[in-house]
Amino acid sequence: MINVAIVGASGYTGLELIRLLLRHPEVEITCITSRQNAGSSVSSVFPTLLDRIDLIFDPVDIDFIFTALPHKAAMEVVPGFLQAGKKVVDLSADYRLRDVAVYEQWYQPHSSPELVAEAAYGLPEIFRSRIRGARLVANPGCYPTSVALALAPLIKNELIDLDSLIVDSKSGASGAGRSAKLGSLYCEVNEGFKAYGVGAHRHTPEIEQTLGHLAGKPVVVSFTPHLLPINRGILSTCYATLTEPRLTGELVKLFQDYYRDEKFVRIHPEGELPNVAFVRGSNYCNIGLVSDPRTGRVIVVSVIDNLLKGASGQAVQNMNLMQGWDEGLGLEDLPLYP
Amino acid sequence: MINVAIVGASGYTGLELIRLLLRHPEVEITCITSRQNAGSSVSSVFPTLLDRIDLIFDPVDIDFIFTALPHKAAMEVVPGFLQAGKKVVDLSADYRLRDVAVYEQWYQPHSSPELVAEAAYGLPEIFRSRIRGARLVANPGCYPTSVALALAPLIKNELIDLDSLIVDSKSGASGAGRSAKLGSLYCEVNEGFKAYGVGAHRHTPEIEQTLGHLAGKPVVVSFTPHLLPINRGILSTCYATLTEPRLTGELVKLFQDYYRDEKFVRIHPEGELPNVAFVRGSNYCNIGLVSDPRTGRVIVVSVIDNLLKGASGQAVQNMNLMQGWDEGLGLEDLPLYP
Amino acid sequence: MINVAIVGASGYTGLELIRLLLRHPEVEITCITSRQNAGSSVSSVFPTLLDRIDLIFDPVDIDFIFTALPHKAAMEVVPGFLQAGKKVVDLSADYRLRDVAVYEQWYQPHSSPELVAEAAYGLPEIFRSRIRGARLVANPGCYPTSVALALAPLIKNELIDLDSLIVDSKSGASGAGRSAKLGSLYCEVNEGFKAYGVGAHRHTPEIEQTLGHLAGKPVVVSFTPHLLPINRGILSTCYATLTEPRLTGELVKLFQDYYRDEKFVRIHPEGELPNVAFVRGSNYCNIGLVSDPRTGRVIVVSVIDNLLKGASGQAVQNMNLMQGWDEGLGLEDLPLYP
Amino acid sequence: MINVAIVGASGYTGLELIRLLLRHPEVEITCITSRQNAGSSVSSVFPTLLDRIDLIFDPVDIDFIFTALPHKAAMEVVPGFLQAGKKVVDLSADYRLRDVAVYEQWYQPHSSPELVAEAAYGLPEIFRSRIRGARLVANPGCYPTSVALALAPLIKNELIDLDSLIVDSKSGASGAGRSAKLGSLYCEVNEGFKAYGVGAHRHTPEIEQTLGHLAGKPVVVSFTPHLLPINRGILSTCYATLTEPRLTGELVKLFQDYYRDEKFVRIHPEGELPNVAFVRGSNYCNIGLVSDPRTGRVIVVSVIDNLLKGASGQAVQNMNLMQGWDEGLGLEDLPLYP
Repeated sequence: MINVAIVGASGYTGLELIRLLLRHPEVEITCITSRQNAGSSVSSVFPTLLDRIDLIFDPVDIDFIFTALPHKAAMEVVPGFLQAGKKVVDLSADYRLRDVAVYEQWYQPHSSPELVAEAAYGLPEIFRSRIRGARLVANPGCYPTSVALALAPLIKNELIDLDSLIVDSKSGASGAGRSAKLGSLYCEVNEGFKAYGVGAHRHTPEIEQTLGHLAGKPVVVSFTPHLLPINRGILSTCYATLTEPRLTGELVKLFQDYYRDEKFVRIHPEGELPNVAFVRGSNYCNIGLVSDPRTGRVIVVSVIDNLLKGASGQAVQNMNLMQGWDEGLGLEDLPLYP
Repeated sequence: MINVAIVGASGYTGLELIRLLLRHPEVEITCITSRQNAGSSVSSVFPTLLDRIDLIFDPVDIDFIFTALPHKAAMEVVPGFLQAGKKVVDLSADYRLRDVAVYEQWYQPHSSPELVAEAAYGLPEIFRSRIRGARLVANPGCYPTSVALALAPLIKNELIDLDSLIVDSKSGASGAGRSAKLGSLYCEVNEGFKAYGVGAHRHTPEIEQTLGHLAGKPVVVSFTPHLLPINRGILSTCYATLTEPRLTGELVKLFQDYYRDEKFVRIHPEGELPNVAFVRGSNYCNIGLVSDPRTGRVIVVSVIDNLLKGASGQAVQNMNLMQGWDEGLGLEDLPLYP
Repeated sequence: MINVAIVGASGYTGLELIRLLLRHPEVEITCITSRQNAGSSVSSVFPTLLDRIDLIFDPVDIDFIFTALPHKAAMEVVPGFLQAGKKVVDLSADYRLRDVAVYEQWYQPHSSPELVAEAAYGLPEIFRSRIRGARLVANPGCYPTSVALALAPLIKNELIDLDSLIVDSKSGASGAGRSAKLGSLYCEVNEGFKAYGVGAHRHTPEIEQTLGHLAGKPVVVSFTPHLLPINRGILSTCYATLTEPRLTGELVKLFQDYYRDEKFVRIHPEGELPNVAFVRGSNYCNIGLVSDPRTGRVIVVSVIDNLLKGASGQAVQNMNLMQGWDEGLGLEDLPLYP
Repeated sequence: MINVAIVGASGYTGLELIRLLLRHPEVEITCITSRQNAGSSVSSVFPTLLDRIDLIFDPVDIDFIFTALPHKAAMEVVPGFLQAGKKVVDLSADYRLRDVAVYEQWYQPHSSPELVAEAAYGLPEIFRSRIRGARLVANPGCYPTSVALALAPLIKNELIDLDSLIVDSKSGASGAGRSAKLGSLYCEVNEGFKAYGVGAHRHTPEIEQTLGHLAGKPVVVSFTPHLLPINRGILSTCYATLTEPRLTGELVKLFQDYYRDEKFVRIHPEGELPNVAFVRGSNYCNIGLVSDPRTGRVIVVSVIDNLLKGASGQAVQNMNLMQGWDEGLGLEDLPLYP
């Protein structure tokens, strides 16, 4: 049983962390902070927690810390937490990119570059052993998680042309956070659909970093995110040219083998494809695929709940690894459907 | 640890029962039947269950049975299950109305009227002791659950004029089930809202039965259901004339006292009202209220997830009581928000 | 052909006015103002208007003016427009309540009380003759429009007990306007439903004023608004006790007679009830009703598009009357379904 | 003024045709047929038309005919209509593919192959002159319309590598029609998102036919449709490798020039991209694009309302051309937002 703090819990990611940790058998939440809600009771800000928590948003210190802050705000506090001997899972982008120059090109100057090399990139299915020993884990972005899991088996097995990668992703509105912006209003999102950040989204270098790691050489992708009129969920449609013809069934088998021991990756049988609704409220990533002989391309479709496998669920999975616990502890929830 | 069957699990209620029971520590699901999906694997019909269940829809027998069938179909099989010595929670309307004549007026002839008297009405907050000893529990309708919990404290304490009751309820689309009907199509429901069954909905006598039981005399209500463009949730807005003036705070306190020991009823503090989203995916009923001195009326607003406290969650709560287990076993889920 | 200005056109009501007036055969929009978008082109703020308008938001003066400002901001500019000899349709609440004391009780001090008596209340179906001669029309609120049209035939014919009125209304999210507020975010509204302003909504005195005018004596109502997860539409469910029993068919006939010459009020035949989707994008108010002999109450359901008959459409209807034109000019749009 | 029939008007496309033609100044609808609604009044099936039409669904004959039937059903009646001297716009797929062998490979045997060569493909922006003289127009599919307009300027100007085309499309639920299917239920579509028909959708050869016509040689594309939880709208994200580097601004200018005289194609300025909500309820196709120097690809995003430019609106545009009228007659509606 350890004491856990959530720093910056005013948004959907923070709420999701609270929801997961309240039922985690090895964890007690002893501190939740939020600059903007300081002094309020947690359940008055998040009425779903009524009668389930009686903490006040309060800035104190603790053993294990989740930082659910925006990038830049995170790197202002993380070094101090580490110096004080705490373990940290940081949900921001600040420690994800191993090349500080790339970080500074897509974000802004980095104030603790020395920690970048130390941080483990928290995608357990690919970097599990590094995460186990880490005191700082950079929790991956939502889009990069959905893409890396979709393409890893193909890249690792050298089955696709690395110059041909196109990723067309679609995310629910909670991905934009809980701050009051015109573009996030109900009437602006509902009954609408749009692409954004075309050719310029900050998750692009993060995707390329993981795919490049798998390939053993630099990879460049076209990545286009879109805004879906749903609360939760990301679906990524990934296109790649096969280096030689492969049947769908053959590739499905390959994915099943690759992820055989993974608790949170589920491969759909041939002929079935995932729907974002199939993982809502769970830590799963579901993957389905089709090999198209007309074009010589394989199309891989992956889905995650952006607040779980795309953020807070994966953060808890990382904590479980860092603490040497069962990796799935507190993450047993089945998807909520409909 | 007992073996459990779900009879008629082709719809949303059946899926929700499976989701709850798969994680219930005292239960093993050993049989799931569905006439229309006979021979299919459960996870091919409900892909959210991929890798979590490998049963085939299969018509066999067992110890404890949930019947998730339409009314009329339920009473064809329930008597046989009881004769075979099984305990049954019936989610249909067939054993809810204690007056067979009323049942036959609103539904159709009853084929096992002798069991009606024996069945316990499965609303634990009001009929807990009867449920504990029962071998047949009639699981309440979704609307009646939301209304009975909203009005019980006022009626029990004789604070309102029983001739003044008006209930305006709104339900999400999963309440209409999972059968392919024109009126349930996405484009017919989305961006729409309508009243239906005005003055004629079959849940009316069920509501009146429970309120009449609480009042100790017959009660007549105006009940108007509406169809909400959301997946899950019922919100009931209940209007009643106070017999004498009461402040909102006074009434909130009364509700808090009345439900002090109830795990699944949560009362909002004065000034706060519930949103259906505050209980999504949980077995809670949240209640808020306002006393309006201008009109002398009290307005009580209650919300439930129609598939949980309004159906499958309450069914599991009833099973827990019938088995002598902790009433909340397997029902610890927090609401999923957003 | 007249020149028209829209003052304060940064929100959904303003956009809807532009959409209607761009196709109105007797109108040229020559000025659109918006403090917050000053200097921007109208089509960059509202991309639906791309290639259809090339005005810049620009604060100049004109002949006929629609003020689409918040209350309080409206009364700061309306007196000046009238002094300059312009006709004004004001879409705010500032000139709707004829009793300045009531206005000041529900809003704030009034800076031009002398104009309150002059202003015509712009509900053509009830106050047509006053509107025709007016230079200042107070365009009604959205909820009050839906309620007044639903209850006018019953009150005018003295068929209901005036002490029994309960109005349960539900509005789409565009009713909350286009400003960035936490409560209007997609994830806060979608898959949710709640009551708000219970016993305290500012449209209550406006509803009571019109119903009182029809009754010839003061009327008090219980009015409860709710927030619907749709873009457009209001549905009001109105309950009243009949002074003596009436069949549904009898009352439907009464409504049809009452509104026989009204272009924008449509009565559903017995057995059919309106859906908000049946009027989306049109200036119609659809009404259906049921007489319930069990309770002695009549339930009237009305629907409007809150941006059309509930705001901008009615404003154009009022302009048409003030100008002596055909009342339906520019308002011929059929509902968009689905 | 001509008399017009709509054959097979039981779905959303039929309703949309009625909505458009009721306000078309040169058209009288004199016959509407629907096998499944025979004998019903049109406004009882489509309550949005209450008080606006008093036809009965009735199988009679006429001058100009829209066939809104499924493929296969259309080719059973179209030859007879032509023999009787009528002009026909067929909204089905039966006369779209000029190569009968291709049609038979993706659909089923063709019963009137002799008419295939005669039929004009009804995409006015590309085949206007052929449509003008035609007595049979095959109205294009919704996806193919969105894709052809997005890519025509690039292909016509030989700016892209034809082997690199990937089209990722997303459609609202009305594209699936109005028949009662499990997959079209509200709870199955709402809060969900999925790909379908991957590598196998029947619009693929239709897309390839038009692009091949523009290129002057065969073209093969990867086409992946997805189901969006909205009522109306298609957004297509199209990827192509540029044969040589081009700036975004350069390409936007090229698109503006290419479509300069087109009333229904609107090009967004550089830095702005379309949202499906920007064309809802209108006959517009909006297009935006980005050239990405990192990957050497251009990404073109186009949006249409699938029931208007993707079906009924384009059908009216084709009728206007066939009759020698102004091409935009009856299609002046501005988008409805929000």
